[in-house]
Amino acid sequence: MSSDCVFCQIVDDRAPARIVYSDPTVIGFLDIRPVRPGHTLIIPREHHSGLADVPPQTGAAMFAAAQRVAAAMRSSALAADGVNLVVNDGRAAFQTVFHSHLHVVPRRTGDKASLAAGFLLRRDRDPDATAAALRAALDT
Amino acid sequence: MSSDCVFCQIVDDRAPARIVYSDPTVIGFLDIRPVRPGHTLIIPREHHSGLADVPPQTGAAMFAAAQRVAAAMRSSALAADGVNLVVNDGRAAFQTVFHSHLHVVPRRTGDKASLAAGFLLRRDRDPDATAAALRAALDT
Repeated sequence: MSSDCVFCQIVDDRAPARIVYSDPTVIGFLDIRPVRPGHTLIIPREHHSGLADVPPQTGAAMFAAAQRVAAAMRSSALAADGVNLVVNDGRAAFQTVFHSHLHVVPRRTGDKASLAAGFLLRRDRDPDATAAALRAALDT
Repeated sequence: MSSDCVFCQIVDDRAPARIVYSDPTVIGFLDIRPVRPGHTLIIPREHHSGLADVPPQTGAAMFAAAQRVAAAMRSSALAADGVNLVVNDGRAAFQTVFHSHLHVVPRRTGDKASLAAGFLLRRDRDPDATAAALRAALDT
């Protein structure tokens, strides 16, 4: 736990987030600056600043959670046609929060989402509905 | 195994590739259209067309291999300052080879690599040297 880390604060319920997924090792919540509505971050509950610090079992849990969230993006009202998983490790690779995390980004055929430098910032007009749709698909 | 799948052919040693990583579950080889020199693909030995078809243990092996290759990109002559891991799942998310795979892309501070639509195609002038550097770092 790092007291200054906003992701640790989310894990510890000291900072708000729209949680969509939770298991004993990782949680998933909506990115507050989504590339696309539904853009979810999968993070380990334990603080690991970089990818090299993430233990293999934790990495396995992150990837498995990403698969589940990706499936929910397709099966839910988000109706994703595809999904990008992205880990940005290091400042040179656009990492901005140094609590290692995995982006799960829903894609639609013909969308204009760019995964380029800094990610394009798009606003979700109704993130509560987006989170509810993902949670519902993950419960089934 | 899918006989028409170029990645299955690489696994089966019926198509050429610069292999940099191998274990009982996955292999890693240089992308022939690298975003950056050293750009490596981690693929399961078994054919799974999409992310949803990849069994959890296989996904865990893919992620663990990606972590090892990422570390090698930093410690080797590639001298990466950061690394992007990317899974493009579905045509809408830029997937072009339907044997699920994970991109590991080395990044340098200030590089201009774009991870946007279709990936920018850059040529590695000496992919054999690049593969050798990664293999050397992975052996240690």
